[in-house]
Amino acid sequence: MKIGYKVWLDNRGKAFGDGPYELLRRVEKLMSLHQAANQMGMSYSKAWRLIQTLEERLGFALLDRKVGGPSGGGSRVTSQGKDLMSHYERFRRDVEKDLVKIYDKHFGPRK
Amino acid sequence: MKIGYKVWLDNRGKAFGDGPYELLRRVEKLMSLHQAANQMGMSYSKAWRLIQTLEERLGFALLDRKVGGPSGGGSRVTSQGKDLMSHYERFRRDVEKDLVKIYDKHFGPRK
Repeated sequence: MKIGYKVWLDNRGKAFGDGPYELLRRVEKLMSLHQAANQMGMSYSKAWRLIQTLEERLGFALLDRKVGGPSGGGSRVTSQGKDLMSHYERFRRDVEKDLVKIYDKHFGPRK
Repeated sequence: MKIGYKVWLDNRGKAFGDGPYELLRRVEKLMSLHQAANQMGMSYSKAWRLIQTLEERLGFALLDRKVGGPSGGGSRVTSQGKDLMSHYERFRRDVEKDLVKIYDKHFGPRK
């Protein structure tokens, strides 16, 4: 037995979590929402709607989009987006560490 | 913005969580899985299958079932089930307290 959990930032709905974090991480690397979505087995339109929804709930832009142009456009994570990612990484590590500790306290390790 | 989360005990699938806890709490009060399920807007067959699945994953019985008889049967929570419930209550309180604390640490209160 072990602890199972999901955690996210909420603002009248999911505003950020592991999935969006992973998507942004790939956008940073690939500089393309299209390729990032593709790597995660998500359609571009779904990824695009997801980003729109998160941006509304967060109240700031996650991606700078360059449409068209000779290089065919591309996306970059905004500085506010990067800031959120680094806060989220540390938040996530603390959550994992503390939840395992609480589980062990009440149910014992490796039960 | 605030933290959103779900937490459960896992043993190759969900073995216990808020829903099952609430169901057992009602069974304890009403001494009937039928009525408990009903109160939660769940069909009896769904509640029954849920309990079966949880018992398999936990490795012990949650309910003592009395089938038929003049009073039409009924269900009671086993002592192992009650023990699990009280551990779970305390576990749950610690989870809530700590997660809010971690959220505030990384994202600030009332942001």
